[in-house]
Amino acid sequence: MWSDTIMARATAQGQAALAILRLSGIGAISSVNQFFSRDISDAPSHTVHIGFLHDAQEVIDEVVITIFRAPRSFTREDVVEISCHGSNYVVERIIKLFLDKTEVRYAKAGEFTQRAFLNGRIDLAQAEAIADLIASESEAAHRVALQQMRGGFSQKLKNLREQLLNFTSLIELELDFGEEDVEFANREELRVLVERIQLQISSLLESFALGNAIKNGVSTVIAGKPNAGKSTLLNAILEEEKAIVSDIAGTTRDTIEDEIILGGTSFRFIDTAGLRQTDDRIEAIGVLRARKKMQEAALILYLIDLAEAQDKTAIKEELADLNPLGIPYIAVGNKVDAASDELRQWFENQPHSLCISALAGEGLEALKSEILRRTSLDKLDQNDTIVTNARHYESLKKAEQALDAVLEALELGVSGDLLSLDIRQALEHIGDITGQVSNDEVLGNIFGKFCIGK
Amino acid sequence: MWSDTIMARATAQGQAALAILRLSGIGAISSVNQFFSRDISDAPSHTVHIGFLHDAQEVIDEVVITIFRAPRSFTREDVVEISCHGSNYVVERIIKLFLDKTEVRYAKAGEFTQRAFLNGRIDLAQAEAIADLIASESEAAHRVALQQMRGGFSQKLKNLREQLLNFTSLIELELDFGEEDVEFANREELRVLVERIQLQISSLLESFALGNAIKNGVSTVIAGKPNAGKSTLLNAILEEEKAIVSDIAGTTRDTIEDEIILGGTSFRFIDTAGLRQTDDRIEAIGVLRARKKMQEAALILYLIDLAEAQDKTAIKEELADLNPLGIPYIAVGNKVDAASDELRQWFENQPHSLCISALAGEGLEALKSEILRRTSLDKLDQNDTIVTNARHYESLKKAEQALDAVLEALELGVSGDLLSLDIRQALEHIGDITGQVSNDEVLGNIFGKFCIGK
Repeated sequence: MWSDTIMARATAQGQAALAILRLSGIGAISSVNQFFSRDISDAPSHTVHIGFLHDAQEVIDEVVITIFRAPRSFTREDVVEISCHGSNYVVERIIKLFLDKTEVRYAKAGEFTQRAFLNGRIDLAQAEAIADLIASESEAAHRVALQQMRGGFSQKLKNLREQLLNFTSLIELELDFGEEDVEFANREELRVLVERIQLQISSLLESFALGNAIKNGVSTVIAGKPNAGKSTLLNAILEEEKAIVSDIAGTTRDTIEDEIILGGTSFRFIDTAGLRQTDDRIEAIGVLRARKKMQEAALILYLIDLAEAQDKTAIKEELADLNPLGIPYIAVGNKVDAASDELRQWFENQPHSLCISALAGEGLEALKSEILRRTSLDKLDQNDTIVTNARHYESLKKAEQALDAVLEALELGVSGDLLSLDIRQALEHIGDITGQVSNDEVLGNIFGKFCIGK
Repeated sequence: MWSDTIMARATAQGQAALAILRLSGIGAISSVNQFFSRDISDAPSHTVHIGFLHDAQEVIDEVVITIFRAPRSFTREDVVEISCHGSNYVVERIIKLFLDKTEVRYAKAGEFTQRAFLNGRIDLAQAEAIADLIASESEAAHRVALQQMRGGFSQKLKNLREQLLNFTSLIELELDFGEEDVEFANREELRVLVERIQLQISSLLESFALGNAIKNGVSTVIAGKPNAGKSTLLNAILEEEKAIVSDIAGTTRDTIEDEIILGGTSFRFIDTAGLRQTDDRIEAIGVLRARKKMQEAALILYLIDLAEAQDKTAIKEELADLNPLGIPYIAVGNKVDAASDELRQWFENQPHSLCISALAGEGLEALKSEILRRTSLDKLDQNDTIVTNARHYESLKKAEQALDAVLEALELGVSGDLLSLDIRQALEHIGDITGQVSNDEVLGNIFGKFCIGK
């Protein structure tokens, strides 16, 4: 429990019907009571009170006060929400009133959530998921964050830890018996367990590529020779998806020209300069850039103009160039409506290929399905546990290394105390994720990235 | 009462800790209940409930539900507030859920307030004050809007109406007696009353200039010859006030370079090209524009360079040019630190004059006080009733004309029925303001200007 009380605006800046200010701490109720036209000092938890906020004789606003008493609140402290009219002036005036005339101070970024964590309401992975949830802009990002916030990921880690803990306890019990040569922990069972845990950790580590794509969007490069129809394809995809997005009532959002949602995941489409051998220096730079973008992509859509290109050998060579990149690609035969049936059939037999007409809008649905398939997003299950956080990835990676050391130690038949050290190391790395083991600096880093008011 | 239920986002767009969605109407509680993890169908008014919103099997968010049962709500209907995480995705997802799977529809601009008005919770002038309150950006605008929202202005109008109504009733009673020559309403008393009411109305009408300044900011033009120090003065004032504004914690707002708050009122400072006779055509256009801006200003700060200009006759002529404009001005003698004491004393004896050094920051406080004095803002009383709304001004103007007709009719000694007609006309115009008499078109106009969600 802290001795001070914090406050912050909890809703977004800007004119609106309402704005919410939130206070948390032992002084939350008494300091609001001091300016409120009704006595709320004995008001029960989870109740709502309408009245006026006053600064001495001056009325500031008619407000709705909601009371959450400890521990039945987000932070497990006393929390008061002030719902006032959504004018910046009113909000600033109220904040100024509390900062000037009470002991309440303005909250730092993420401080409410930090208190929720430090008071044991949520663990660290759940706290981080709250920030992700607020930042989520697509269905998949939202779903993954929500699952993590509800503790799905934490539960999985807890299970891993518990299994390991049991074994460590047994091994450490052996140490208590000192000289006697007892072995409570069956070494073979331990090996099987560690291998099983490593399997789970490596599947979590693998999920990070997907998790990262879900959280930050899949970078998809559209490449191909000049005039293959790259920009037409980009426009065709954007056009169609925008119409769906703008269906939702009452919302305007900043549209990023080339970012769209497919199958609930955000894709960043990157158009590139046409790829061809050229003597023009400027154009050559463009081509070089295009190649660089392809190397950094998570997915490449490689366009071939089927109306122009009749030479199958040339097409084969062009596509073969993609393999060394080691990045999932889709070979897209464009302008199929102007190509011969024979060419179409031949092209569709190439690996990862598909025919479309970007201009006529033909084959776009099939292309979108293929995009999801090639990025493994189609296999995404509602209940999959996915790592989306680089910090978690880091810790899992270290836990994996520590478990490697355990296996090696078992192989060598080292003594119980050394074995125990390695297991403890793995436990610590897993514990880092949920904040069972953590220091102030780590916490400062994590919560400093939150928005103020959360 | 309406048969349909409306919903809208009530807090500003953007990522934040929280966002609030509001529903109002007979279906508000039951439709939320349908997706909420707990049964709130019998929950009492003014209570708060924490749980999850579901779309079938899928969890959308952990939310806090607040229930206001009719008539104890803003609209006097059942109102439910959903407090969710402040992610645009989550907000859109929840809105979509209700629009797709219930009878709830998205609210039109101002529709919540319109329901509050039509259900008799507030009158029209109060409803308009809510929009003003939300838009208020300065202390004075906030205070005037709040006073109007709390019914101060409405009460004043109600008193005026009641006095008039009493008389009309008496006169109309005379008409019931038909041929008999009775006179229940003393004509002399009526004349005195009408004159008293006119006095009140004209003082309200006069307050509109001030009210408009408070609501929209006082347009203040800084003029004078080239190099008189106009831009230096603007910067000096802006600089000093900005430091104060930025003191308030946790707020970033769009700064409009030349808008500042003085004495709680917003001033829009407009810098102009130097005024001088010139043969340069381009420069002449600038001078013409400067003169035009001066004509449109609410206040002119006219700068004279006391360090350069030694010729008193020329200064006198320059200042005399301001009088024909008929706009309050302050003659500001700049660079006073480089002027002779004699010139300074002489200048300070000119009408509405004041000496400063913009560069050294000398005399700025005195200038600010003079600005408030010249715009009558220093006399503003906490409890003054001030007309800020052009529609109200219009109605009061018409009421004044109708009362003129009443006075004229009294002068001519016309019959009771004609007199009654004129009084009724005045009553109607006053009633327009609070919405006692109003039609759909007027209401549509008023509420259409509100923000969605209010």
